[in-house]
Amino acid sequence: MVNETQHTCSASSSSKSDGGSSSGSESSKDSSRCSTPVLDAERHERLREKMRRRQDSGDRWFSLEFFPPRTANAAVNLISRFDRMGAGGPLFIDVTWHPAGDPGSDKETSSMIIANTAVNYCGLETILHMTCCNQTKDDITGHLQKAKRLGLKNIMALRGDPAGEEWEEEVDGFNYAVDLVKHIRNEFDDYFDICVAGYPKGHPEAESYEADLKHLKEKVLAGADFIITQLFFRSETFIKFMKDCQAIGITCPIIPGIFPIQGYHSLRQLVKLSKLEVPQEIKDVIEPIKDNDAAIRNYGVELAVSMCRELLDSGMVHGLHFYTLNREVATTEVLKRLGLWKEDPRRPLPWAVSAHPKRRVEDVRPIFWASRPKSYIYRTQEWDDFPNGRWGNSSSPAFGELKDYYLFYLKSKSPREELLKMWGEELTCEESVFEVFTCYISGEPNKNGHKVTCMPWNDDPLATETNLLKEQLEKVNRRGILTINSQPNINGKPSTDPIVGWGPSGGYVFQKAYLEFFTSNEIVTALLKVLKKYESRVNYHIVNVKGQNITNAPDLQPNAVTWGIFPGREIIQPTVVDPVSFLSWKDEAFALWIEQWAKLYEEESPSRMIIQYIHDNYYLVNLVDNDFPLENCLWQVVDDTFELLNSPTQQ
Amino acid sequence: MVNETQHTCSASSSSKSDGGSSSGSESSKDSSRCSTPVLDAERHERLREKMRRRQDSGDRWFSLEFFPPRTANAAVNLISRFDRMGAGGPLFIDVTWHPAGDPGSDKETSSMIIANTAVNYCGLETILHMTCCNQTKDDITGHLQKAKRLGLKNIMALRGDPAGEEWEEEVDGFNYAVDLVKHIRNEFDDYFDICVAGYPKGHPEAESYEADLKHLKEKVLAGADFIITQLFFRSETFIKFMKDCQAIGITCPIIPGIFPIQGYHSLRQLVKLSKLEVPQEIKDVIEPIKDNDAAIRNYGVELAVSMCRELLDSGMVHGLHFYTLNREVATTEVLKRLGLWKEDPRRPLPWAVSAHPKRRVEDVRPIFWASRPKSYIYRTQEWDDFPNGRWGNSSSPAFGELKDYYLFYLKSKSPREELLKMWGEELTCEESVFEVFTCYISGEPNKNGHKVTCMPWNDDPLATETNLLKEQLEKVNRRGILTINSQPNINGKPSTDPIVGWGPSGGYVFQKAYLEFFTSNEIVTALLKVLKKYESRVNYHIVNVKGQNITNAPDLQPNAVTWGIFPGREIIQPTVVDPVSFLSWKDEAFALWIEQWAKLYEEESPSRMIIQYIHDNYYLVNLVDNDFPLENCLWQVVDDTFELLNSPTQQ
Repeated sequence: MVNETQHTCSASSSSKSDGGSSSGSESSKDSSRCSTPVLDAERHERLREKMRRRQDSGDRWFSLEFFPPRTANAAVNLISRFDRMGAGGPLFIDVTWHPAGDPGSDKETSSMIIANTAVNYCGLETILHMTCCNQTKDDITGHLQKAKRLGLKNIMALRGDPAGEEWEEEVDGFNYAVDLVKHIRNEFDDYFDICVAGYPKGHPEAESYEADLKHLKEKVLAGADFIITQLFFRSETFIKFMKDCQAIGITCPIIPGIFPIQGYHSLRQLVKLSKLEVPQEIKDVIEPIKDNDAAIRNYGVELAVSMCRELLDSGMVHGLHFYTLNREVATTEVLKRLGLWKEDPRRPLPWAVSAHPKRRVEDVRPIFWASRPKSYIYRTQEWDDFPNGRWGNSSSPAFGELKDYYLFYLKSKSPREELLKMWGEELTCEESVFEVFTCYISGEPNKNGHKVTCMPWNDDPLATETNLLKEQLEKVNRRGILTINSQPNINGKPSTDPIVGWGPSGGYVFQKAYLEFFTSNEIVTALLKVLKKYESRVNYHIVNVKGQNITNAPDLQPNAVTWGIFPGREIIQPTVVDPVSFLSWKDEAFALWIEQWAKLYEEESPSRMIIQYIHDNYYLVNLVDNDFPLENCLWQVVDDTFELLNSPTQQ
Repeated sequence: MVNETQHTCSASSSSKSDGGSSSGSESSKDSSRCSTPVLDAERHERLREKMRRRQDSGDRWFSLEFFPPRTANAAVNLISRFDRMGAGGPLFIDVTWHPAGDPGSDKETSSMIIANTAVNYCGLETILHMTCCNQTKDDITGHLQKAKRLGLKNIMALRGDPAGEEWEEEVDGFNYAVDLVKHIRNEFDDYFDICVAGYPKGHPEAESYEADLKHLKEKVLAGADFIITQLFFRSETFIKFMKDCQAIGITCPIIPGIFPIQGYHSLRQLVKLSKLEVPQEIKDVIEPIKDNDAAIRNYGVELAVSMCRELLDSGMVHGLHFYTLNREVATTEVLKRLGLWKEDPRRPLPWAVSAHPKRRVEDVRPIFWASRPKSYIYRTQEWDDFPNGRWGNSSSPAFGELKDYYLFYLKSKSPREELLKMWGEELTCEESVFEVFTCYISGEPNKNGHKVTCMPWNDDPLATETNLLKEQLEKVNRRGILTINSQPNINGKPSTDPIVGWGPSGGYVFQKAYLEFFTSNEIVTALLKVLKKYESRVNYHIVNVKGQNITNAPDLQPNAVTWGIFPGREIIQPTVVDPVSFLSWKDEAFALWIEQWAKLYEEESPSRMIIQYIHDNYYLVNLVDNDFPLENCLWQVVDDTFELLNSPTQQ
């Protein structure tokens, strides 16, 4: 949004701005009653409603702008950044549109796909930018249809930079952002929320500041829902602009664009592109420290904080939009100092809710993907319905195949060298694998002094909740019970509990103890004997890579292992152990041994053969202790198993 | 089944006994996984599968035969008998077919409607008898289609008595039961389970015992699933018959028909109709005591018990079929002495599950109809879907209108004179109404010495569970909080708890405290002030007959107030407080004041005007205490309300 050339006249564009055209339109009206628990009221609202709700309630908010990355590796990093910065609670993020970068394509680095990832895999409300000049109507409609299909609901309508020096208006073409706004409203009715750009100093190509304001009003009249401004350097600039907009009858929200100065060169480049002038008082500070990045960033943060405070104190501003330049530190710092960064908001459900409209009723998932939510979303993206309350009904569509590839699917986020340091340059026996699992749990460095901060099944360090089980987990991993997922039993803790709580306040959350691990054939044989003693209490499911399958799940029914009771709500059971989808998970869990671990080593190398042996011969086991009010018996089950193995009469 | 004329030949009937005809057929196959919790495995099985399961597991069972009543009052009584005898756990009941009584009509006393009531309102697996002689193919198909539409799944295929003395076979007509069996299989494929009659002594009109056995085998070959026999007087008779059937290759279940002698005249009449001979040793005992009903019944029970023991001890019999003659005492006594009567089996859900196939996934209902389950079933009979797991989705279809009439809908089971004794021959003020409510709760006689054993909203005395709240309920009713429904809070009692338990063993059940009552405008005004203090904890819904409506239910969402957690299952939440259906219930709850109570009195009489005043001016209130792990706060809410009313600063 750095440089949108302003328009001079809209006579040549279509005048049907609010007609009843319905091609591609879709009613998004809900019935007066929700069919799903509104744990998060905003889950069902469109962006402009969320904005209004925040304004009405006086809650201040922020949003974050990103541009699409150039390489697949950069895309993986950007997605991690979405997750980290998403944790601070932005009202939305937006992704810019670069006509030169094939922005509407299926490439994993395109604007379209990055926005798709933000919505569907990171659960972020997202605005996709779109420019219109030098594009055919069909191209634009195609992009919009694709965006809609992917679940995107918000468009930032821009003109974009004309190609070539001497640009001329095309008759009946898309010459100005207002043409794009009208086109979206004509073709997609009210489906999209539309944002347009405002220029607090006037657009550099406008005849005058006043003429530019008039064009902004035209964009709003054509159907834009809110305005985000170009960056500016003084709060007075925005406040004057806001008043001038109001004076000519622009009443929609106007969100100031904030640019925390992060370095000398990025500032210069941005200023050049946007044809803005940096005020002398800022130049005076920056020039002397231009080679000291940290000093400039500190100054930039300081400056942004004080400008934001002035804006918020004016009472005219409810939300702040940040130009992040895809960086985290400066923006996060500004937000934290403003008190707008809301880390660890109460989780609406134990897993992050996807922002795709089709998934908004979803409130049950199998526990198996707890550490791989993106993989789960990816493998279920073709589903028409998502489980709402009960798992049984909606799980019939098949899971996506393993052969499908995606950024975060079977690849680790970490580079090969780092993985080798963590998981072993050379494995000598199965026990060296046990050691890796044990170090991951304990947090202690491995024998080469490297901490194991991720595993093929867990991209991140141990969850706080899993820490509750750390001691026992460490003990069993050392003995070859290679755990990849677990949760403690919980008998009615308040929903506001900082470790295990979720959902609205005033409720109570519950869990059944769960343990999932790989282990050898020998241990499984003993385990099965032990489990007979626990038959009525413990549900188990044991499967190997060939699909040999042993379970005592009654009628292949799912077992709810996490649930919550809330004031004035139906019961929510966000995670289940489902024997049917466990077989889909099993393929993925076994494949990760090979794809992420074995392939680090040369073919035929001993290390690779050890992993291959485990892959071929171990079983994947899950255990649920149904008696959640009692002490977790799963550790006793494991102890009994080893006792049986060690007893002289055994075998 | 007392008298089925046997057939001599089946040459004239259709030979298409197992063709692929599909008109009216419907696949009842389920997918390999249930979409609903199989709390009661038998809920999803057809009768022949239930029979097989019982046989395999060695569980002995019984079934009960009834005939349709002559009057509407007798029908009301018979339905109560279904409920009482259903509590003993019959595998099924059956309803006989009397061609003279318009058995397929919509009259409330017809065989069809009585069977419909048994299935849909009493939740009993039911076999409808059907005879075929002297009927057209279209008539028979019409009856079968209607039976299917009503959710009946089992037919006892009989010939019936030919009309007139000189009966002749009709060419291409339905001359024998086997013709009906073939017709059912041709037209309805495998939809119905089919039962046929067996004659341990041979049919009275058969050429010979052997010829009769051959005809029985033809009926089985034509598609019958099992056989129920005519009554007999000696166990040897049945055992010989059973062996003879097996010898000629009849392998389906054969269920002995047991007739406990209940009186001299009924025995004589039955014997005459069925052309059976009463053995001399029985006659010798009965003749001398023929005028002593009690003595004959005792003898009959004795005789039946010893014959049933012999049958069960033979190892050839797994189930016993009882000809009840629509009476309870003798059959119940025999069953209790045999140890087959299973009173208070664990409830699969807190309410009785309907036996209609369409409702078999149903596992959520609003709590409002807890004491009026038949009314609820009636008002939701047109629904296409029933809530499975979540209430929100499935409650959109409208509730049936109040104007619809049905046996048990707005009429009390008790006669007017009795109701007047309980509810007052003459009411003098609102307090005399409070007194009636209080006596119903306390179980103490009213001032005229009559116990109040039912109320317009509760046909039966107080539930055991409600007894837990008796003291507090009595106190508040005395003060004009006229309670009609309530439950205590429960925080994780075992599912086997005799008072509040339900569902499979090994689980835990929970409840939120609930209180529903009528009360005056004055009390509601104070209550609303008090409720402000409890805002986050107590959900309330207050409405008067005009529909003035106050609630704090978030987004009109249902509130689960009963739920259970079971090994290897999803969460079940069988009752909810639903703000939308409360408005349908409200109409019914207010109408019952007038229909059942006010109309006992003359128009314009003071008594009637008092009830009319309450109907017009009182509010119906429901309260839920969401904090189920803490002590129920609803009594405190009521106390606070009266304290406020009595404080000098109030008003």
